[in-house]
Amino acid sequence: MSAPVPPPLRIPYPPPIVVKVGGSAGIDRAAVASDLASLVQEGERVVLVHGASAETDVLAASLGHPARTIVSPSGQQSRRTDRRTLEIFAMAALGVETFSYVELLKRAGTQPLGLFGLLVGRRKDVRAVQDGRTVLLRDDYTGRVEEIPVSLVWKILDDGWIPVLPPLALSPHGEGLNVDGDRAAAAIAAALGAKTLVILTNVPGLLRSVEDPASLVASATLEEAEALAQGRMKKKAMAAREALEAEVSRVVIASGRVGRPVSRALAGEGTVIGKAVAAR
Amino acid sequence: MSAPVPPPLRIPYPPPIVVKVGGSAGIDRAAVASDLASLVQEGERVVLVHGASAETDVLAASLGHPARTIVSPSGQQSRRTDRRTLEIFAMAALGVETFSYVELLKRAGTQPLGLFGLLVGRRKDVRAVQDGRTVLLRDDYTGRVEEIPVSLVWKILDDGWIPVLPPLALSPHGEGLNVDGDRAAAAIAAALGAKTLVILTNVPGLLRSVEDPASLVASATLEEAEALAQGRMKKKAMAAREALEAEVSRVVIASGRVGRPVSRALAGEGTVIGKAVAAR
Repeated sequence: MSAPVPPPLRIPYPPPIVVKVGGSAGIDRAAVASDLASLVQEGERVVLVHGASAETDVLAASLGHPARTIVSPSGQQSRRTDRRTLEIFAMAALGVETFSYVELLKRAGTQPLGLFGLLVGRRKDVRAVQDGRTVLLRDDYTGRVEEIPVSLVWKILDDGWIPVLPPLALSPHGEGLNVDGDRAAAAIAAALGAKTLVILTNVPGLLRSVEDPASLVASATLEEAEALAQGRMKKKAMAAREALEAEVSRVVIASGRVGRPVSRALAGEGTVIGKAVAAR
Repeated sequence: MSAPVPPPLRIPYPPPIVVKVGGSAGIDRAAVASDLASLVQEGERVVLVHGASAETDVLAASLGHPARTIVSPSGQQSRRTDRRTLEIFAMAALGVETFSYVELLKRAGTQPLGLFGLLVGRRKDVRAVQDGRTVLLRDDYTGRVEEIPVSLVWKILDDGWIPVLPPLALSPHGEGLNVDGDRAAAAIAAALGAKTLVILTNVPGLLRSVEDPASLVASATLEEAEALAQGRMKKKAMAAREALEAEVSRVVIASGRVGRPVSRALAGEGTVIGKAVAAR
């Protein structure tokens, strides 16, 4: 099939804010949704990308296929996504998280639209360290986003909808793929020319000392952020690099467990990461 | 939020074929997907609406909240959809069925797009007969489709996508609703000015004698179809009426358990229902 996509007729305006909200326990989905609704009422356009990790873990345990973690040769931990895990991940991502955000955004008076199939990606060669040896996992459905149909996203935004995207892509061969939500959001922010990417998580931002919330880094250059990032923050730093190397001016990593989390992040609460000299 | 929707710039052409495929066991999803891909390659535009009943039953049993059936005062059976059942239904519909059709349609070389939030509906007053008395079920999340954002659907079709829709709507208050997929497909066919609505199910069509596949009715007027319909076929006859009372010229009820099921239905295999004189 080769549907001709017409060239854009204008430079779309205003560019949207792209918000990634994590899927860990403790995220206040209702607060995220009502805050996004306020921003939309003020004239902002938003794209929401969400995670699904905690819901996947709960569902996987209920269905007798408990979550497993793999460790890459570089020490990065990630979810082992065999075919059954992918299916459970899809149920949690689309069936629980997308469903819930669409309900909450509608309740808050907006026009949400959950979408699957929009993001096309590529399967990763997933390597894991097992018993001290590095093995290639041939049946792993983890991937990265490679194509975003910008033309359609603009039409959806122009018609007044809030796109709600699960951390799922589709390979050209029709395989669903578990993608990193932070990096998917960065790719979307880059493709749409967003000025700001907000990444909401279950900690207040980048911490100098992981155990101490008071060690929050208020602002950082990309290089500082990369040097400080540990554990799950490493992927957020990678996402920040991918966004900032495009036209995105700033990335804010902030708490998703507070009231008005997006507005607070936009006001600079959390860790503001800029290309060179940080804003604060 | 009041995003202005611009008026359509042209009469969209060609009108799509709307295909509803049931969610019962035995439906050959891969055959439906590859047949739809062939039709798209021949220049047709299609909208797919799917069911989720068998997947919901399996998941509900696995999660310890088994499916229950209610009987309406008029004798119609339907799924009892309390809040937990709605959540399970969403996992099965979006997370299993939409996910699977999007994968299969991509594999077949098309551009599928799973959508949730597009259909806005209203909660039904669900009445059930329990112990001989009729009771109103206040916590039932069953509804009917009332609004279809035609403008956006045309844009999605114009960009070359196949919309894939689960049998879920959203109330204005942000409640997910379990809607009848046949009637949702009829409403979509009516709204888009489709010429044909194809309803694929696990039987060959409308049967004079439910136990005898050889008693297939090849063609029927709406009134004949309504008189013959029993059990689950009653809702398909209602869907046929809703489609035919709009601009839809014919409704074909046919088997989803055969190769090339959509092409066969379009060629007249199954039961062809027309407004007055039937086509065969």
